[in-house]
Amino acid sequence: MDPLDRLEATIRARRGADPATSYVASLTAAGRAKIAQKLGEEAVETVIAACSGDDASIVPEAADLIFHLIVLLADAGLSLDDVRAELARREGVSGHDEKAARTIEGKA
Amino acid sequence: MDPLDRLEATIRARRGADPATSYVASLTAAGRAKIAQKLGEEAVETVIAACSGDDASIVPEAADLIFHLIVLLADAGLSLDDVRAELARREGVSGHDEKAARTIEGKA
Amino acid sequence: MDPLDRLEATIRARRGADPATSYVASLTAAGRAKIAQKLGEEAVETVIAACSGDDASIVPEAADLIFHLIVLLADAGLSLDDVRAELARREGVSGHDEKAARTIEGKA
Amino acid sequence: MDPLDRLEATIRARRGADPATSYVASLTAAGRAKIAQKLGEEAVETVIAACSGDDASIVPEAADLIFHLIVLLADAGLSLDDVRAELARREGVSGHDEKAARTIEGKA
Repeated sequence: MDPLDRLEATIRARRGADPATSYVASLTAAGRAKIAQKLGEEAVETVIAACSGDDASIVPEAADLIFHLIVLLADAGLSLDDVRAELARREGVSGHDEKAARTIEGKA
Repeated sequence: MDPLDRLEATIRARRGADPATSYVASLTAAGRAKIAQKLGEEAVETVIAACSGDDASIVPEAADLIFHLIVLLADAGLSLDDVRAELARREGVSGHDEKAARTIEGKA
Repeated sequence: MDPLDRLEATIRARRGADPATSYVASLTAAGRAKIAQKLGEEAVETVIAACSGDDASIVPEAADLIFHLIVLLADAGLSLDDVRAELARREGVSGHDEKAARTIEGKA
Repeated sequence: MDPLDRLEATIRARRGADPATSYVASLTAAGRAKIAQKLGEEAVETVIAACSGDDASIVPEAADLIFHLIVLLADAGLSLDDVRAELARREGVSGHDEKAARTIEGKA
């Protein structure tokens, strides 16, 4: 089984656990804004690792980032498979076209 | 095949393409700091989607975030499998213990 | 007059201008989420400049960050003087005590 | 005296203090990457406050953001006056022209 999916299953199972013993449960109890904050913080750490000159340091930060992304998806009733479906939908669309489409939507 | 791995294969193949026709190639040519910047921007958009009240809007932002995370990993000679290995290594470590360990390392 | 306050006066004056000719008006018209997004993006650029080894590059990024912070404050009916009053209120509180207080509030 | 300048003077004075009793000293001792990380985290909190619907919550986050921006400037041998000079230099340049110039520089 993909460790990403195992992690997602674990996160979903722990959402309802005791916040005193589960980080996922305590973060979930803290609410959506706190989950989003942690995601943003892990992204900042990934950016800094990316610019640090020590590329090996990117791996644990990327793991933290994906961990918190899955916590957010779960909190929204979404899953990694929803993200996979979005990526599959985009296949065949060039990055530049994808970027242009996002720009038109006012995103990029 | 997992769409995440298909995306990673595509990104790796396009790194050496013509920057005029490939977003991945143009971003790669722009350099590490630009890749890190785009990752950070997509994280900001994910944070805002998370707080928007429109949970469906999280999916395309999460897809953009993972796309740019894979571009960064590829630029550093790393892969999603390196992140999967890190997540597998952490299995069995509770989130609170993991967080405590990161705190001791001065990270959290 | 402090250039910060001149900038704030300019930003306030332009909020109601034609979005076709005023960046502040176009950003204001795009809405709060877009203003917050731009603030986050400028912060990412400041972080990257801070880690770039080229310290002089921090100055224009810091200026962009403060510009967008003032746009946000104005959009919320707030001002730099509100931030100054908050900073004055904290004077005499040590940073560690301030941090401890923020931690107790669940912020740090 | 402007509370911003008083804060800057305090931050500069505390950089060389005992890290055990001064937050500024401890952050400075932790190094540039840690200062940049804290700046990024405070920006994330400001973004979330901006989207929270509680506009009054923006003020303390903006104060934290400016605090850490001044810590970064001081660490780089820069000052708020350098940022003020950059903003004064831009006066008379319309936001759209400024943005266009930044885009040409590959920044926006």
